[in-house]
Amino acid sequence: MATDHKINVSVSLYLDTAHDLVREIESASKVSCSSVTVPIVHWNFSREFVREPLRSRHGPFTRSDLLLSSTQWLNRVICRIGDNLHLDSPIDHIRRQAERTIRQEMSFAEHLVQNGYLYTRLGGSNCSNFARTVGCTMFKGTLLVEVPISNPKLTQNGWRRDVPDEEQTVENPWSWWNTFRSHTDYNSSIKVALELTADVPTKDEIYRWLGEPVDAIVLPANIFLTNAKNYPVLSKAHQSMLTLFYRTFCCHFILKANPADGHVAHYVDYIKHIIRHNYVKDPLQGYEDLLQIPLQPLYDNLDSFTYEVFEKDPVKYIYYQRAIEQALLDRVPEEERETTTTIIMVVGGGRGPLVRAALNASVTAERKVKVYVIEKNPNAIVTLTAHINELWRDRNVELISTDMREFNPPEKADIIVSELLGSFGDNELSPECLDGAQKHLKADGISIPCKSTSYINPVFASKVYNQVRMLERSPHWKDRVLSSRHMEQAYVAYQKNAYHIDNPQALFEFVHPNRDSDPIDNSRYKSVSFRAALDCVLNGFTGYFDTILYKDIMLSIHPFTHTEGLASWFSMFIPLTDPVQLKEGDEITVHFWRCVASHKVWYEWSLSSPVVTHVHNVDGRGQPIWQ
Amino acid sequence: MATDHKINVSVSLYLDTAHDLVREIESASKVSCSSVTVPIVHWNFSREFVREPLRSRHGPFTRSDLLLSSTQWLNRVICRIGDNLHLDSPIDHIRRQAERTIRQEMSFAEHLVQNGYLYTRLGGSNCSNFARTVGCTMFKGTLLVEVPISNPKLTQNGWRRDVPDEEQTVENPWSWWNTFRSHTDYNSSIKVALELTADVPTKDEIYRWLGEPVDAIVLPANIFLTNAKNYPVLSKAHQSMLTLFYRTFCCHFILKANPADGHVAHYVDYIKHIIRHNYVKDPLQGYEDLLQIPLQPLYDNLDSFTYEVFEKDPVKYIYYQRAIEQALLDRVPEEERETTTTIIMVVGGGRGPLVRAALNASVTAERKVKVYVIEKNPNAIVTLTAHINELWRDRNVELISTDMREFNPPEKADIIVSELLGSFGDNELSPECLDGAQKHLKADGISIPCKSTSYINPVFASKVYNQVRMLERSPHWKDRVLSSRHMEQAYVAYQKNAYHIDNPQALFEFVHPNRDSDPIDNSRYKSVSFRAALDCVLNGFTGYFDTILYKDIMLSIHPFTHTEGLASWFSMFIPLTDPVQLKEGDEITVHFWRCVASHKVWYEWSLSSPVVTHVHNVDGRGQPIWQ
Repeated sequence: MATDHKINVSVSLYLDTAHDLVREIESASKVSCSSVTVPIVHWNFSREFVREPLRSRHGPFTRSDLLLSSTQWLNRVICRIGDNLHLDSPIDHIRRQAERTIRQEMSFAEHLVQNGYLYTRLGGSNCSNFARTVGCTMFKGTLLVEVPISNPKLTQNGWRRDVPDEEQTVENPWSWWNTFRSHTDYNSSIKVALELTADVPTKDEIYRWLGEPVDAIVLPANIFLTNAKNYPVLSKAHQSMLTLFYRTFCCHFILKANPADGHVAHYVDYIKHIIRHNYVKDPLQGYEDLLQIPLQPLYDNLDSFTYEVFEKDPVKYIYYQRAIEQALLDRVPEEERETTTTIIMVVGGGRGPLVRAALNASVTAERKVKVYVIEKNPNAIVTLTAHINELWRDRNVELISTDMREFNPPEKADIIVSELLGSFGDNELSPECLDGAQKHLKADGISIPCKSTSYINPVFASKVYNQVRMLERSPHWKDRVLSSRHMEQAYVAYQKNAYHIDNPQALFEFVHPNRDSDPIDNSRYKSVSFRAALDCVLNGFTGYFDTILYKDIMLSIHPFTHTEGLASWFSMFIPLTDPVQLKEGDEITVHFWRCVASHKVWYEWSLSSPVVTHVHNVDGRGQPIWQ
Repeated sequence: MATDHKINVSVSLYLDTAHDLVREIESASKVSCSSVTVPIVHWNFSREFVREPLRSRHGPFTRSDLLLSSTQWLNRVICRIGDNLHLDSPIDHIRRQAERTIRQEMSFAEHLVQNGYLYTRLGGSNCSNFARTVGCTMFKGTLLVEVPISNPKLTQNGWRRDVPDEEQTVENPWSWWNTFRSHTDYNSSIKVALELTADVPTKDEIYRWLGEPVDAIVLPANIFLTNAKNYPVLSKAHQSMLTLFYRTFCCHFILKANPADGHVAHYVDYIKHIIRHNYVKDPLQGYEDLLQIPLQPLYDNLDSFTYEVFEKDPVKYIYYQRAIEQALLDRVPEEERETTTTIIMVVGGGRGPLVRAALNASVTAERKVKVYVIEKNPNAIVTLTAHINELWRDRNVELISTDMREFNPPEKADIIVSELLGSFGDNELSPECLDGAQKHLKADGISIPCKSTSYINPVFASKVYNQVRMLERSPHWKDRVLSSRHMEQAYVAYQKNAYHIDNPQALFEFVHPNRDSDPIDNSRYKSVSFRAALDCVLNGFTGYFDTILYKDIMLSIHPFTHTEGLASWFSMFIPLTDPVQLKEGDEITVHFWRCVASHKVWYEWSLSSPVVTHVHNVDGRGQPIWQ
């Protein structure tokens, strides 16, 4: 790990109040803070609402907007609203006064920062009216909701000063946030400003935040320690949290420190140092939590761009080449290497990467091969023909331009090689394709790959989920998706903003060639149970697969066995129509069906515990996969 | 109560098997059974599925459809499917065999009965695959799902033979049904055939069924007792259940009895006797569970038909007349009755029923009145003018044709009389209207009514709920509703098919004249908590109101204080977007807001316990009430 100074780390200075806003911004800038977080209301202007303020009163209640340019308001100021307001007071006139006050603040804050940041603080789970008043309003910008990562009433050992011994249970502030955002229907313009505390929560509690829309990390001065040289530093545990959250969210930071104590510059430098020092570039940067529609290569012909992306995978074809090499060595003993030609059929040749792997394997294994390459996409045929005439003109390669389920080769194969697996294993219909092709395999012939297994785990992933919900509103996406039932489709996404509620478990398994059952039945049904370690929310399942190419040569995107460097597959995200609130210890039982009809294949899924949900994607109404 | 022989009571005879279907129908007919309930598959035809049956096998597996005419199949046969099938077997090949078998049965049953009845039986809550295979398919007709009202494994005293003492808990079969129908997404073509058992469940357990889509009551012979004359009879408890279910659902009956025991005719006669003997005609028959959009009389002018319906209420104007009479007597002592004229303003005169009540009260109280009648609807003005020129030409009635919030009368009123209340009290904006009118009231003047209160209770009501869901699909309704957010609107309905989960509690209160606050604030916020006595489902709230006209003279549609004979108001149904599964003892906390802006008023609502829901009808997006 080497410190990367080019990483942009943005820190905002949180001030209890700002007497002279222009000067405060300048001072903050001198200590490398790019903005200040200040209350929208200046304490000089006391406010009293006898009646609805905006209709009938027009006196000033805070500084003028002319203090700063609109760009400065947007970039240099995070406007804090709702300080010391009691929107959930049981006393009617206090609540009403608070409602009027915060509406005035929100209105003015939006006037100032436009599509910038508003900031407010959550103090408990009794926040229904707060959520309605603040959270259900439409913003142009982003509302940051400050939540402490552990309950401030909790002392180090879990004991609370203000509660009798027999009632020592303390709400986790995550549940405050969960109440707030559930009332707002998971509004995607509301995000978390997560405040670190001196107490470090459990690992599970930290991971639970990884699924939430965390946008900023708030660092109060009291979590800093002093090192031998009298400089402020963070404990190892705090450093790890900071690094983890930055890697997941690429978040910005808000520093709660008193400028008068003279340490602000040190705090800021130290935060930037920690982030830059621990920075690791993600090779898949740019794809994080981006929703993609799974390919249907059997139905659609892939385009040149897609082929190129797949061919670029740094490790996939190396594993294929190794598998073929090993198979050649196993099937043809040393003494037959000059006399025996192994028949390899590449089914679904694309632009030729598997042909190349087979030819390379033939060289490294020193075995003779004849390669039939079967491809249905007329556009890829052009490339393959060019390769055969030029690159491979001295090699024994024959092109068959047809669908692999229908072709009629002149001889049977020793090895069928294919790359038909999707992120969920069989979701690009490899079983159906290989069932069709296996009749051209010799009795002792083999398939590479020879087995694939799908896996799922329950997940809460706010960013991908919100994208699915957005689909219903965006006309741009409408054309690209298969139906209007967006919640009843599986998606592909590199899921970073995700809380994995339990470990993955195996779902469906397919073996090739499939000689066990006649007729072959590729429909499947399985129910799998998981457990929630904490109160949390479930909004879908993450799907993975692994595959055995040959013997111990595997490819995997299962998180525990992920093939290093493999970049061809992101995991699946399979949503539930409605998020399910889980309690610690709840059993999650999910049912998955793989259904097969004459012209399509589809998955259906539903929960039966802790609540029963409707069956998703009934009859493939949301997402049929066409055969 | 007098036996009403005209009531049509339909009984179907349930047969384990039917050797000769035509003859069985004839025999059933002779004992007054209108149809038979028989397995679709004849036992003579054994079936075995090596492969997908409908594609590759075409041999007969049951009797021919030519046995009966299509009308007979529809009216005389209830086709039973899935007898002895194990769709949720953990053993793959048994499950697959069951799936193929039931698909064949369903296909043939639909072929025969078209939009008639299919019938199947639930045996436990492990029914996810059963629900998917049977319940998620589209029917032309209705699928009846047989569920016993208490668990057959339960003996009289709650002890189960087959379970060790320490594990003596028995699932209530309601939860089987709940699992089944939740998987099918509350499919409205799936209904309950509720089988009575010798055990009588608790009152709460019986009431829970009142919210479900019960279509038939199944009576097995073993619940009948034998009376002194050796005739079969039912216990009082069973008779009450029968009567209750018939009153709620107008259901049909299915009798499980062996024709060979010779009692069938007695059973049938007895069932019909019980129903007819206990029949009470509902004066509101025809309106049951019919969804209506609440009126907005302030925004829309009512039509002649609506006025006529309201004027027909048999008791409403009698109470108004009594209230005015009492007020006149209180305000004008006997000695002033010749000299003092009481000024009455009828605000919102309609076609004159309140004017009539005021004039009648003046006669019965022997007090002089002058009546100003204020009305904004130009169509009603025509009627009022005619009344003034003819009926009331000798009385002191003056018409003011304007909106009550804007009129300017020549003098102040002693009494303002209005009928502006909706099913939820203030939902037709009586507070806003009366606030505008009260400036024309003398300092000691009174308003009739002087107070209104709304009430809510949590409810499960499958029929009205399903209608709300249907709105999104029916183009006919689309024009009549206010927006596409059908789940975020309140409806009016005479809710018979409803399980009231807890007793009603008061929500918002309005007092007239409102002299306490300045400026008047008619916005409200309240959270109310309820408790679930049983596992059940919550899909909305029923709303009511009561109002004090004057002193102890009240009108009420609150179920505990309902004014006898009052027919003007049905209760409200306020849905939740997604049904919430409740556990016994769960606290239900709901928040209601009444929001007021310059041109509209609206309600918002959300749950915070046992789960947090989004706030419904934010900013009146689903249902604004225009001022």
